[in-house]
Amino acid sequence: MGLDFDPPSSDKQVLEESTAFTPKFDANGLITAVVTDARDNALLMVAHMNAEALSLTIETGIAHYFSRSRTKIWKKGESSGNLQSVVEMMTDCDQDALLLKVTVAGHDATCHTGRRSCFYRTVTLADGAVKLTISDNHRHFEPHDIYKP
Amino acid sequence: MGLDFDPPSSDKQVLEESTAFTPKFDANGLITAVVTDARDNALLMVAHMNAEALSLTIETGIAHYFSRSRTKIWKKGESSGNLQSVVEMMTDCDQDALLLKVTVAGHDATCHTGRRSCFYRTVTLADGAVKLTISDNHRHFEPHDIYKP
Repeated sequence: MGLDFDPPSSDKQVLEESTAFTPKFDANGLITAVVTDARDNALLMVAHMNAEALSLTIETGIAHYFSRSRTKIWKKGESSGNLQSVVEMMTDCDQDALLLKVTVAGHDATCHTGRRSCFYRTVTLADGAVKLTISDNHRHFEPHDIYKP
Repeated sequence: MGLDFDPPSSDKQVLEESTAFTPKFDANGLITAVVTDARDNALLMVAHMNAEALSLTIETGIAHYFSRSRTKIWKKGESSGNLQSVVEMMTDCDQDALLLKVTVAGHDATCHTGRRSCFYRTVTLADGAVKLTISDNHRHFEPHDIYKP
């Protein structure tokens, strides 16, 4: 079952300008997925997919990733209810990255910390020191209530 | 010269909630950088940085990456004039990815094909076949004029 993906063409012109979808998985069999909110393009998270996760995502319209820490398929939002419906999927010139424009169900939160986006801290440089500033501290859910130990 | 980055904390709470910037470089010494247009959050490209590229980017405010194909520091736009000024840099919960919100100089194009964004094709499923549809074919510059052989 599942979709098969042809290997990338060695012809740069074909890779970049044709309509053949030939995702380039890395040495670990993964491709980077950038996930944005279809409403306003806000970056929500960066994750990885193997061929199975990509196939499941395309076939079901619900985002599936490959969890590198748990080394298994990860149906995003299965625990929290924050499932991601894919509105549009795009790829880049060399087809080694994917963009998923999604709508988020549940709490409208993507980060496991309860925030809307995993990108909630800004990198700042002051007096030669690099630090983070928390730019979004609003929790849409309380992580302890959702992820039981 | 350049900035030093402390290694990531093994304490998840510190990694996720503190203001210490400890970017997590992968086994190849690289971290993923997602680049968006500061004007409208449009995704422009996905690239990689080593510690030197990250340091140069923070210190100069101009995006530098590490070219995996050329295995060297890559000052984006040096050939094309499409330099990226960093308006804001963010990191995610586990600090293994960066977001750069940039303004693009020159032709207002990021892709080497001349398009505004490297993400100019949409993945579509029709009758069980996955294909790409070109959703942006406007060239801001003619690649052959910019990148001399």
